[in-house]
Amino acid sequence: MTLRSASPDFITALRERLPAHSFRDATPAYLEEPRGRWAGQGVVIAPDSTDDVAEVVRACTQARVPVVPYGGGTGLVGGQISPDGPLPVILSLERMRAVRGIWPEENVIVVEAGAILQDVHTAAAEVDRLFPLSIAAKGSARIGGNLATNAGGVNVLRYGNARDLCLGLEAVLPDGQIWHGLKRLRKDNTGYDLRNLLIGSEGTLGVITAAALKLFARPAGEGTALMVVQSPRAALDLLALARAQMGEGVSAFEIMHGQGLEFLAETLPDIRQPFADPPEWFVLIDVGLALGLDPTSALETLFSDALEAGLVSDGMIAQSEAQRHQFWEVREQIPEANRRIGSVSSHDISLPMSEIPEFIIRGQEVVARIGAFRINCFGHLGDGNLHYNVFPIPGRTRADHLAERDDIKRALHDLVHEMGGSVSAEHGIGRLKVGDLERYGDPAKLSAMRAIKEALDPLGVMNPGVVLRDQPQVG
Amino acid sequence: MTLRSASPDFITALRERLPAHSFRDATPAYLEEPRGRWAGQGVVIAPDSTDDVAEVVRACTQARVPVVPYGGGTGLVGGQISPDGPLPVILSLERMRAVRGIWPEENVIVVEAGAILQDVHTAAAEVDRLFPLSIAAKGSARIGGNLATNAGGVNVLRYGNARDLCLGLEAVLPDGQIWHGLKRLRKDNTGYDLRNLLIGSEGTLGVITAAALKLFARPAGEGTALMVVQSPRAALDLLALARAQMGEGVSAFEIMHGQGLEFLAETLPDIRQPFADPPEWFVLIDVGLALGLDPTSALETLFSDALEAGLVSDGMIAQSEAQRHQFWEVREQIPEANRRIGSVSSHDISLPMSEIPEFIIRGQEVVARIGAFRINCFGHLGDGNLHYNVFPIPGRTRADHLAERDDIKRALHDLVHEMGGSVSAEHGIGRLKVGDLERYGDPAKLSAMRAIKEALDPLGVMNPGVVLRDQPQVG
Repeated sequence: MTLRSASPDFITALRERLPAHSFRDATPAYLEEPRGRWAGQGVVIAPDSTDDVAEVVRACTQARVPVVPYGGGTGLVGGQISPDGPLPVILSLERMRAVRGIWPEENVIVVEAGAILQDVHTAAAEVDRLFPLSIAAKGSARIGGNLATNAGGVNVLRYGNARDLCLGLEAVLPDGQIWHGLKRLRKDNTGYDLRNLLIGSEGTLGVITAAALKLFARPAGEGTALMVVQSPRAALDLLALARAQMGEGVSAFEIMHGQGLEFLAETLPDIRQPFADPPEWFVLIDVGLALGLDPTSALETLFSDALEAGLVSDGMIAQSEAQRHQFWEVREQIPEANRRIGSVSSHDISLPMSEIPEFIIRGQEVVARIGAFRINCFGHLGDGNLHYNVFPIPGRTRADHLAERDDIKRALHDLVHEMGGSVSAEHGIGRLKVGDLERYGDPAKLSAMRAIKEALDPLGVMNPGVVLRDQPQVG
Repeated sequence: MTLRSASPDFITALRERLPAHSFRDATPAYLEEPRGRWAGQGVVIAPDSTDDVAEVVRACTQARVPVVPYGGGTGLVGGQISPDGPLPVILSLERMRAVRGIWPEENVIVVEAGAILQDVHTAAAEVDRLFPLSIAAKGSARIGGNLATNAGGVNVLRYGNARDLCLGLEAVLPDGQIWHGLKRLRKDNTGYDLRNLLIGSEGTLGVITAAALKLFARPAGEGTALMVVQSPRAALDLLALARAQMGEGVSAFEIMHGQGLEFLAETLPDIRQPFADPPEWFVLIDVGLALGLDPTSALETLFSDALEAGLVSDGMIAQSEAQRHQFWEVREQIPEANRRIGSVSSHDISLPMSEIPEFIIRGQEVVARIGAFRINCFGHLGDGNLHYNVFPIPGRTRADHLAERDDIKRALHDLVHEMGGSVSAEHGIGRLKVGDLERYGDPAKLSAMRAIKEALDPLGVMNPGVVLRDQPQVG
């Protein structure tokens, strides 16, 4: 059952069944990915409707042409790219971006898969609601891709991953059937959870065409603080204290290392440095509280209790929206500073939260055994999710360390795995981590995954080579 | 591939591989179910360990003997019962009830599947945490069954279903492989979501043997109110107002009809009636708020704002824990009052929340077209989940209406389906609703479900006849 290229004849036949504007040039936007590891190939089709998506998928399945579902193209692990093999159809959802309905009294919005994440935020805000999924690429990422990759981001602590924000899906399955699953229900125990199976399957089990998503009441008042913590362990204790006082009101809890401030000073000197004397570890705490609570006072109470408990040594509470923005900018610009410095190796990992302090110590040891590097470790501490990036020491560049790159990655991932963590916390497997999944994945889970893939996509047309390695195919 | 009965030889062979105490008499407790619709059959085996569960499942798969996973036996749709066909192994998890670990600083507990739900509550409370899943059967239901059926209950509004409370699973798959998936991670995007596929699959895709579950900080202060609402629509507006003021602080929002109070007065006269003059519709609101907020004052603010907006006409706020308990008792005893009256037909349904007022009107019309009945409609309004029960008028009994029972069920379920709802909000499909799933289920989803079942359990040994109808089998 070898896959075949999308031939001129195949495309000509499809052109008879779809509007002309569905066919688009395969411009670089469709063939590049943010990290520049792969160059893609394919014929770009952007259908107007779910029926047209089904038409394309059916045609591809019949002709055994690969389908690469395409959202905003912002994925970081290559799941949106087909670098080689038979020429695929790149199935872009960009023309399907309607808000099909919004029900503020239900806290529900139904959007098509091509809607830009930021536009979903705006639609929610227009009815005084919050759609909390927020990632750096929100201005170009599309909701279908966010769901296909189970995107995370800064609000997972309070509101969960993309998975947790989805009530229902409409999707085209590999055989071309449309699953009409756009339920606006909070409880529905009628059969297997196909929704969560598609979410996070990175386009390998079907094409998400629309979603019913949860909205939330906007918190009555919001506040942000930066606090210098004595250690990562103290940061965890501070989080527990914050939750004992404010419960779900803690919206984000991000840890940063002084190394990040140094990188910011070096590469983005216009960013205002929050501390005169850069600390080793500090956290950003964001809260959204109920009516009757003043976020500033609540953060003051937290700080003074934490000071008394010896968890924090310094801190500042934003006194205005502008200052909140300033604090967040420090966090949000660290990835850009990292890019400018140029990492040898970067890692999107998660750990059981109580293991994080130990991981930070052992991670340094592991890296030091390979050579002299600088480490910038920061991330969503409240979710146990660290972005752990390894950089050359001053005077060297990443090009000097190409030989050590794989060793660093392997050693750190081995450590993460040994400590019960995940080597892909929020970015997914894509093409980049297929080998990691084979190395670290549970064998029973992997065999169940392969059986499910084979059951739903027996010809293997959906995003071949992503998540699971292409199986040897017999013609 | 016909299934075969667990023969004496088969059991003898298993006895050589498992401790003697694993084999238990098939006492009525294993063969009855709460609604008395089916009588079961089977050989009861209660393994001590995951390895022994795998041993049993492997043996059953090899011999093509059906396996019925068994938790607390509290399911309401017959998923724990095998009434006919080849004699199965009833695989009870009752001996596996250890707390394998608890990490308050991570808000995580790992428990074996046979742990009683109430015992999980206690273990969490001992470290000053909350495990929020709460159902009427919590004193006997086991966590494995709660997960296998994706149990709901009164705290779904704030904390989600069983599904939302689970971080990781250990399970034995139908081929006898053990999936070691007890991750304590909030973010882990490494492959298909096998966890959520098993959750809610009602023992048809494997046996859950242990779970990593989320815990929560206990709210700093709690409060409860009863409020008389002008209509179901007003109740929804009141919920939106409560959330605008208190966000996730609203823990439960239950609607009740005056009919329920009448039934209570008639069958359980010791229950204290909350209102001198029974209202048509009223709600119970439970809140758990952050430090610095007084729940009583917050509920007073809500009530006075709601009064001004014309949403409520009367109300009372609990002034003590004893009074909170009294208010909750009204809600919790309504199902018992219903049982004593004797329903003609009862329905566990959910609807898009904004459709509920319309459904209540149209539901009455649908029932009235069939005959004269009393309706007691109550439930988890905040989740869109109604328990909609139809009773004889005074002077008649359910026995007088056996002929109309199926018509009522069909007519109401047709209406629910037409309005975008679910005919099984929280109880699952089991054996009871297999026909409903075939009638109302999406065809593409059903065909995907059948493909997944065939892929993971090709011999069909796992809980045959539950969720999906037995396929005709060729030997």
